[in-house]
Amino acid sequence: MQNKASPDPAPLYRALLAPKSIAIVGASGDRTKVTGRPLQYLRQAGYKGKIYPINPRHETVFGERAWPSLSSLPEAPEHAFILSPTLDVISAVAECAACGVRVATILATGFSEGGPEGLRRVRQLRDVAQTSGLRILGPSSIGVVSLLDGVALTANAAFAESDLPAGGTFVASHSGSMLGALVSRGKARSIGFAGLLSVGNEIDLTLGEICAATLDNPAVTGYLLFLESLRHAEDLRSFAVEAARRKKPVVAYKLGRSEQAAELALSHTGALAGEDDIAAAFLADCGIARVENFETLIEALPLLSRVPIGAVRNRAPRVGVLTTTGGGAAMVVDGLALRGINVVKPSEETLQQLTNAGINVGHERIVDLTMAGTRPDVMKAALDTVLSGPEFDLVVAVTGSSARLQPELAVKPVIESAAAGKPLVSFLVPDAPEALAMLARAGVPSFRTPEACADAVAATFARHEPKAVLARPRVFKRAGPAQLNEWDAYKLFEKLGVPHVTSAVIPVDAATIDLPFAYPVAVKLLSDTIAHKTDVGGVVLGVQDENALRAAIASIVREVANRCQDSSVTHVLVQPMTSGLGELLLGYRKDADVGPIVLLAAGGTFTEVYRDRSIRLAPVSLEVARQMIAELAISRVLNGYRGRAAGDLGALANAIVALSRLAIEEEYSVLDAEINPLIVRRAGEGVVALDALVRLDGDS
Amino acid sequence: MQNKASPDPAPLYRALLAPKSIAIVGASGDRTKVTGRPLQYLRQAGYKGKIYPINPRHETVFGERAWPSLSSLPEAPEHAFILSPTLDVISAVAECAACGVRVATILATGFSEGGPEGLRRVRQLRDVAQTSGLRILGPSSIGVVSLLDGVALTANAAFAESDLPAGGTFVASHSGSMLGALVSRGKARSIGFAGLLSVGNEIDLTLGEICAATLDNPAVTGYLLFLESLRHAEDLRSFAVEAARRKKPVVAYKLGRSEQAAELALSHTGALAGEDDIAAAFLADCGIARVENFETLIEALPLLSRVPIGAVRNRAPRVGVLTTTGGGAAMVVDGLALRGINVVKPSEETLQQLTNAGINVGHERIVDLTMAGTRPDVMKAALDTVLSGPEFDLVVAVTGSSARLQPELAVKPVIESAAAGKPLVSFLVPDAPEALAMLARAGVPSFRTPEACADAVAATFARHEPKAVLARPRVFKRAGPAQLNEWDAYKLFEKLGVPHVTSAVIPVDAATIDLPFAYPVAVKLLSDTIAHKTDVGGVVLGVQDENALRAAIASIVREVANRCQDSSVTHVLVQPMTSGLGELLLGYRKDADVGPIVLLAAGGTFTEVYRDRSIRLAPVSLEVARQMIAELAISRVLNGYRGRAAGDLGALANAIVALSRLAIEEEYSVLDAEINPLIVRRAGEGVVALDALVRLDGDS
Repeated sequence: MQNKASPDPAPLYRALLAPKSIAIVGASGDRTKVTGRPLQYLRQAGYKGKIYPINPRHETVFGERAWPSLSSLPEAPEHAFILSPTLDVISAVAECAACGVRVATILATGFSEGGPEGLRRVRQLRDVAQTSGLRILGPSSIGVVSLLDGVALTANAAFAESDLPAGGTFVASHSGSMLGALVSRGKARSIGFAGLLSVGNEIDLTLGEICAATLDNPAVTGYLLFLESLRHAEDLRSFAVEAARRKKPVVAYKLGRSEQAAELALSHTGALAGEDDIAAAFLADCGIARVENFETLIEALPLLSRVPIGAVRNRAPRVGVLTTTGGGAAMVVDGLALRGINVVKPSEETLQQLTNAGINVGHERIVDLTMAGTRPDVMKAALDTVLSGPEFDLVVAVTGSSARLQPELAVKPVIESAAAGKPLVSFLVPDAPEALAMLARAGVPSFRTPEACADAVAATFARHEPKAVLARPRVFKRAGPAQLNEWDAYKLFEKLGVPHVTSAVIPVDAATIDLPFAYPVAVKLLSDTIAHKTDVGGVVLGVQDENALRAAIASIVREVANRCQDSSVTHVLVQPMTSGLGELLLGYRKDADVGPIVLLAAGGTFTEVYRDRSIRLAPVSLEVARQMIAELAISRVLNGYRGRAAGDLGALANAIVALSRLAIEEEYSVLDAEINPLIVRRAGEGVVALDALVRLDGDS
Repeated sequence: MQNKASPDPAPLYRALLAPKSIAIVGASGDRTKVTGRPLQYLRQAGYKGKIYPINPRHETVFGERAWPSLSSLPEAPEHAFILSPTLDVISAVAECAACGVRVATILATGFSEGGPEGLRRVRQLRDVAQTSGLRILGPSSIGVVSLLDGVALTANAAFAESDLPAGGTFVASHSGSMLGALVSRGKARSIGFAGLLSVGNEIDLTLGEICAATLDNPAVTGYLLFLESLRHAEDLRSFAVEAARRKKPVVAYKLGRSEQAAELALSHTGALAGEDDIAAAFLADCGIARVENFETLIEALPLLSRVPIGAVRNRAPRVGVLTTTGGGAAMVVDGLALRGINVVKPSEETLQQLTNAGINVGHERIVDLTMAGTRPDVMKAALDTVLSGPEFDLVVAVTGSSARLQPELAVKPVIESAAAGKPLVSFLVPDAPEALAMLARAGVPSFRTPEACADAVAATFARHEPKAVLARPRVFKRAGPAQLNEWDAYKLFEKLGVPHVTSAVIPVDAATIDLPFAYPVAVKLLSDTIAHKTDVGGVVLGVQDENALRAAIASIVREVANRCQDSSVTHVLVQPMTSGLGELLLGYRKDADVGPIVLLAAGGTFTEVYRDRSIRLAPVSLEVARQMIAELAISRVLNGYRGRAAGDLGALANAIVALSRLAIEEEYSVLDAEINPLIVRRAGEGVVALDALVRLDGDS
């Protein structure tokens, strides 16, 4: 749909964020109007390029010459900010395209979220973009700010503030109004910004594509994303892969953890928010750190810069906590533990080294300096000793009152020790703005609240190394019906390597029935149209002999004939009754937002009541499959719980890997596949699919 | 154990927080030493009473006359702060008692957390207190501060800061170092304090008793508690009941939500932290608002002051959100929804009134003024309209950039509308310290982060009206064995009104067996010693006829003889095999920290894997029992889930109420009782206990 002709992001960066000339379409000279803001803010920011206010009703705007139209300009401006009302936008954009404008940013609303009429306008805008090469930001974008380039092309009142610090953080947001919150909170914490923009409806330029265009700028060192939903996930992934390669960290806050907020995102932007844990899996898989607390979004980047993605694999991260206040440290320990991060005790060797350095601490989980004294030299020696302990992946230094009373003395040892290499983060328990500013200026990850500290540490270690976007096969060898019948689904499973229960296909009018396995058996209708067999009386369990089998077949034929006028049953599938230690649900689907995912969940009632599930982008490795199993609470039951037999978790991991390969399967394009139940047997006895529902893409 | 002779808290308040004379035992003249601080801080605070530094080695301390001993003083000081090392504390306290000191505060550690030797010292201190009437604060207390009374008797360096604002909030903490964090963060938010103290080991004066002693001071308007564990819960409840009666709100942050932090509390204070959800139930039941985020502790009191305890009963609270920024509001909606608070749409009538006032907003869940304009007059009119809507229990006003750029204009409508009556809280999305300070000074509940806002709103509505401490019977009519056998347990259930399965007691050597119900049956050993019948081969299920029953009895006798040398089986209990829609666990126990509790949990594997449970202090009303059922995720399955039959939740509620009455049962003193499973049948068919384990108190 989108125009992605340019392989070189530099021209996009220039036209979007550092244009040499700008037109402001609909610029007003009224200071109180939103349309009066961009010209004022641009001038205030000291913009060095050429500005063309477009206003057919006035000769001048704020004393500057105004032009009646884009076509009257002496040159094609590189960037046009269209402030016109909704109904005038299409013609303004068309005029931009005709003049050779490179990027048009649209402020108005009433497009993607504007009902059928709005969607018609979106199509018109896309047509203009595709036929002309004009790139569009928005609609519903508050504008574009590049503090690096002296551009403040925005209607956001927050940029009336002119002394905003420039820095390395680039902000991209679905919400325009959040830019003000981010820039002000950043300023209060001595965080400087490279640029900030809101992407609005993303009908052409997407958030991922825009961020990617900034990657070549060495002054941009990290990214901060405020997301209302996941849209254009492939662009986001492409950007994230490249950002990871260049070691530029990305942190995201995503709305929609609750259904209520997901619904708001819909009404707000016209984008349907998917299930939140799918979004979480996607972001983690892209190496993007997703934080839970808003303030963490401001605070997390320095830590993300210091810890490589995937720094800890196949085990829980191990964090050491060193403190001058027991209560303050306990808050961090609580926060970390609730997020699955272990706070570990120093090793005997580390404790001995502390003793050798004259620092006596208890044998607790945390290194508490309350008794040893909180003097800077003690703090420094203790920090260096603890940081040298190989038992820690990261150390949190918790500082009490001294951070407020003697900020310079209190943060000096932390800043010095942080330079040593191993990640060291600082949480200041009292209100200590001076100390926080010193730590920020020194680049030390530092936190105002125990929650943000724990949130950032957990998000840092949760990142996976991003995989490149898969070049998925677009042409499939076989077209088929929308749904595979269970027998054909098993054939596909055999190809993938997913074990299934032995099955026999029997015509409903078979004269003789010769099963290749013993009774009792389960009998199920075989259909490529009916998805829920039980609901139509299409399943009979515990059938004990051939007579009962014939009765079961007759019952299924009769029930289905009664309940589904459109379907008739010609064959049934017969399987031996099978049980095991537990039942899981294993699923695959092409998610509309993020692409192929594989899902493992507790089976039966558990699935929906407890939402005990683990999701990853597909395909997955054996290592990731094992992580998925470990994430399920129900796995405890399958792992030798309370003296019970242990299940075959190795075979389970293999089955997850196998099903996830549907993402790279070339013969069929599978829309979704669900195995419910997947029976887990005792260790060494494998797993077995007892049912299968596979639906194919419309395009296969 | 404790001396609670004084029914009048005023003398305790005076001696503890506003003494006319103070001795500082072990006062040092060295500015760099902890023992040098209290005298400096007292003088700095302008303390008006008499100070007696006690130091046998110096004539003067900081130029003031020092005294060699307490006995050398011209009068008995009301309060002595003992800074002596651990080994000198006992003699110092004994000297206090001998002189007639009223309160002694002990700084040293090495008592409750000091191993066997430390516990011996605790006993010695308690002996002194009980025989003399001296009250002891600590050991391990950092001291006592009353900003209302000009007393800064503390070794906490945070009180080197002399311009701390006095106000209405009284702080009591298990941790001394947290006082500095609270007072500094409070100061930054224009929150003034009445007094602050840390209670240390609470070997005599408990946190609850101390807070209760301040209730008569009209200048104390609310309480802020930092808890590491729940100790002396009865004192805490007594205080909370009285605080609720006087409409003085109490907010608590409690550590130990994770096991790791609970372990820290143990090593830190010698107090064993119980299960966190029991503590949560206790605090809610006391009308104490428990907050999750540290910053909420600082921010919550103004809201708690405005919303009465139990303002919303038997339904979820309904919150309206009005905003000048969609993204900012969505963060609050997300936070509230995750905590079970519904953000509801304005009613058609409210929307019509907004329209009548010229304010056009969409038909969304939130009232978004972005389009209507964010001018103060629009904000004021919109707020007043929304606040008048009976559909809301509380309204959150979310303010964007204007809060930073024009703080006075932005907060004015909020302050004015907040005066109207219905609770209105403010969340400011940008960094806006001036606006926050104005709101705080006006007493408007205001929040820096969406998380704290949602946390405070949820904690506010979660409070229950506290019940007075029960005068529980101390003498029981019957002493019994430690465990009731299942038959006797059912007799107790009959008395309480808990339905149980029909049962027959059969001697193992019965010549004839005549069951009052049909086969198949379950056979179980009857024992008042063996708790886990299945583990010893004491249960046989699905017994089909008399022959099988005799075989089952023989098997049980044989198995128990083999596995439990000490026990022999004389009788079995026979019951009809019974099933229903679902299985729950219903339990009761006298918790060591908080007293009698009743617990409802998902049965079987669910209980431990998903920790799906609801806890209340016992006894409970039918209304509370219904809340408990609603809190369980598994209740969805019992409530007509996906076309299944609905369970008899009315009968379930009755059973919960009945079992919870064990708390007021006079015949037996039950330590714990567990029904697992409690079978829930279809609506109208009741619930039935299929098993019972009842253990009696040692003292019964």
